[in-house]
Amino acid sequence: MEQAHGGNLKEAAEKFNISESEIIDFSANINFVGPPPDIYSKIRKEIEAITRYPEPDSTSLKKLLAEKYGGKADNYVLGNGAVELIYILTRILDLNKGLVLAPTFSEYEKALKAEEIEVNYHYISTDHSFKLNINRLKKDLTGDIDIFFLCNPNNPTGKFITRDKIKELLLHNKKKDIFTVIDEAFVDFLEQKITSLSFLKDFDKLFILRSLTKFYAVPGLRLGYGIANKEIIKKINKAKDPWNVNSLAQKAGELILEQKRYDKLTKKAIYREKIFLYQELKKFKNLRVYYPNANYIFIDLTDSNYSGSELYNQLAERSILIRNCSNYKGLDDNFIRVAVKSREENKILLKALKSFL
Amino acid sequence: MEQAHGGNLKEAAEKFNISESEIIDFSANINFVGPPPDIYSKIRKEIEAITRYPEPDSTSLKKLLAEKYGGKADNYVLGNGAVELIYILTRILDLNKGLVLAPTFSEYEKALKAEEIEVNYHYISTDHSFKLNINRLKKDLTGDIDIFFLCNPNNPTGKFITRDKIKELLLHNKKKDIFTVIDEAFVDFLEQKITSLSFLKDFDKLFILRSLTKFYAVPGLRLGYGIANKEIIKKINKAKDPWNVNSLAQKAGELILEQKRYDKLTKKAIYREKIFLYQELKKFKNLRVYYPNANYIFIDLTDSNYSGSELYNQLAERSILIRNCSNYKGLDDNFIRVAVKSREENKILLKALKSFL
Repeated sequence: MEQAHGGNLKEAAEKFNISESEIIDFSANINFVGPPPDIYSKIRKEIEAITRYPEPDSTSLKKLLAEKYGGKADNYVLGNGAVELIYILTRILDLNKGLVLAPTFSEYEKALKAEEIEVNYHYISTDHSFKLNINRLKKDLTGDIDIFFLCNPNNPTGKFITRDKIKELLLHNKKKDIFTVIDEAFVDFLEQKITSLSFLKDFDKLFILRSLTKFYAVPGLRLGYGIANKEIIKKINKAKDPWNVNSLAQKAGELILEQKRYDKLTKKAIYREKIFLYQELKKFKNLRVYYPNANYIFIDLTDSNYSGSELYNQLAERSILIRNCSNYKGLDDNFIRVAVKSREENKILLKALKSFL
Repeated sequence: MEQAHGGNLKEAAEKFNISESEIIDFSANINFVGPPPDIYSKIRKEIEAITRYPEPDSTSLKKLLAEKYGGKADNYVLGNGAVELIYILTRILDLNKGLVLAPTFSEYEKALKAEEIEVNYHYISTDHSFKLNINRLKKDLTGDIDIFFLCNPNNPTGKFITRDKIKELLLHNKKKDIFTVIDEAFVDFLEQKITSLSFLKDFDKLFILRSLTKFYAVPGLRLGYGIANKEIIKKINKAKDPWNVNSLAQKAGELILEQKRYDKLTKKAIYREKIFLYQELKKFKNLRVYYPNANYIFIDLTDSNYSGSELYNQLAERSILIRNCSNYKGLDDNFIRVAVKSREENKILLKALKSFL
C-alpha cells in the first residue's frame, strides 16, 4: 500500500474493509494523551468564530508565542500546519540546490522539487545505527548547497543531535552561506532541552519550524509556526495568504499557550508509556528497536520473517495501523514506525505482534 | 487606516477603542443569514476530528462537489480558502506577465508579484459606470499576456459579465494562448446563472475558482475550491500540502453540500434585503449607488462631503465597519463598499448615514 504519510484512516478502512472508528492508529505521531482538556469546550464556546474571517496573520497568537518562547511577535509566523511554511520558504528563498537527510520527513524534498530545486541526499547511516555523524554530514554541506533541512529529532528514526552539534553545524553553514531549516516538530516530546531558539540571534540564515498540533494532539486544526529574523518573516508574510490559519485553530492556539500544567503532565505519561512499549518490543529477539527519544518508535525488521508491508497488511486486517517506512528515501521494506499510545492500546499492538513474530 | 481587506474586527476595535463584539461588520461580504442551521451542531458533534489528520487532499469532499456541480472528483481541488489556490496557481504555471482588472480583488496582483510576475492593469472604467467593456478589454489581452484574472461578479463593484461575453473572452484568450482564471467567489449570490463550469470541456487553459465560505457564511473555516482539467489539478496537488484543508472545514463542507433547502431560502432573504438597502441608499442625493448583483453594494461618494476614509472613521466610532475602497488600484478615496445585512442592521447603517450625509 502506498502510504505518503501516516494517519490516513479513511483510506486504510476502505482498503481493508474495516471500520474507521475501530482503527487503533499507531501510524501518526500524535500525543496519545489527547488535547488539553479544556480545548473542546473552548472551541464549542467560540464556534461562532467560523462566521468571521480569521485575524489576519494571527497577530494575537504571535504575541502569545513571543511571550512564551522569547523574541518579538514579528519574529514569528503562523502556518496552516508547519508544512505550509516549508513550501513558502522554498518558494521565497533564492535556491538552486538543497540537501536533505535520508531518511527524513518527506515534505522537505517535495517542497524543493515543487520549486524545481535540485535535491541532494545525505544518507544517515550505512551501519544501521541511524546516528547523524556531523563530520560526515559536513562533507555533504558543500559550497553549492543553498539550503539544508535538519529534522531534530529526526522523523522516522527518533534520533536527535545536541545543541553543541547544532552550533557546529550552523557555524559550518554560515561559512558556506547555507540557509538552515531546523524542524523541531517533535522537540517538545524530548526528555532533554535541545531547541535552537537561542541561536537565532547569532545566525541570520536560520529558520526554526515548530508545530502545536503534535504535542497538543490537534493535527486536524493545522497549526504550525516558524521563528526567524524579521526580514525573513516579512518576506513570508508578503508571499502568503493573510488568512492562512483558520479561526478555530487560532482559538485553540490561544488556549494551548495559556495552559500551564498540561505540558508536564503529558510528558510524564508519554515517558512512562514509551519506556513500557520500548522494553516490551525489545523482548522480540528478531526486532531491532531504536530508543524512542520522541513519541514514536523506529523498528528494523530485517531479522524477522516479515517485511514492513507484510506486517502493515497483517496488522491492518486487525484494525491496527502502523507506519510502513518503505517509501522513505534511504530505507527499504524492512522498517516500520509505531507511535507510543496508551497502555491499553500498546498492549493490543504487542499481543498482535506476538502472534506473528 | 490601512485596510488590506474587510473583516478585520480586532484591529478596528483597538484603533477606535470600541468593543469587538459590538461591531456591526459591513466590511466583509459574508451572507448575513449565517451558516446552514445544522452546522454548529455538526461541528460540535465531530469536534474530535481535530485530534486526527485531515483526510489528504479532501477526497470525500471532492466526490461530493463533483456529484453536485458535475465533472469528476479529479477535476476538483480544495484550498485553505480560495486565496491559497490563487497563490499555488501563479506558482505552478510558467508565467511572465499577467493582466488583472482595476479595481478588483487584490490577491491576484499580490500572488503574481510574489512570483515576480509582471502585472498589467485593465482599468475598467473612466466614465464611472464600472461596466466591463469586452472589446476594450480584449485590446489589453495581447500576445505577451500569460494569465488573466476575471472576478465575476467583480469585487468591489458588483458588476458581472454574462456567459456570452465570457465565451467571447475565452475564445480570444485561446487564440492568444492566455490562461484564464475566473473567480466565482460570489456567483452563488446572483439572481442569474452565469457560472463558467460548462466551458471547462472546451477550454484547457481555464481555472474556475469558487468559495464555500461566503455564501455559506463560514469564512473562519477557510474552504475554497478550484475546477479545471485533470492535468492542472494534478500539478496543483503535487505543489501543495496534502493536509491543506483542516478537519472541521472538511466536516462543514460535507454538511454544506448535503443540505438542500438552505440555498433557496437564503437567496430569497438576501434579495429582499439588498433591494431594501439599495433603494434606501439611492434616496441619498449625494451618493451614486451601484446595483448590487451580489451581496454587497458599491458606492461612489464623489458628490458628498465625505471621503471614503472620513466616512469609514465616522462610522467606526459608532461601531459600524464599512469597507473603505481607497486601496483598490483604479479607485481613489471616494469609494466605499457595504455588505448587505439583516433589516435591523441595515437600518442602523442607514440611520448613521443620515446623520452625516
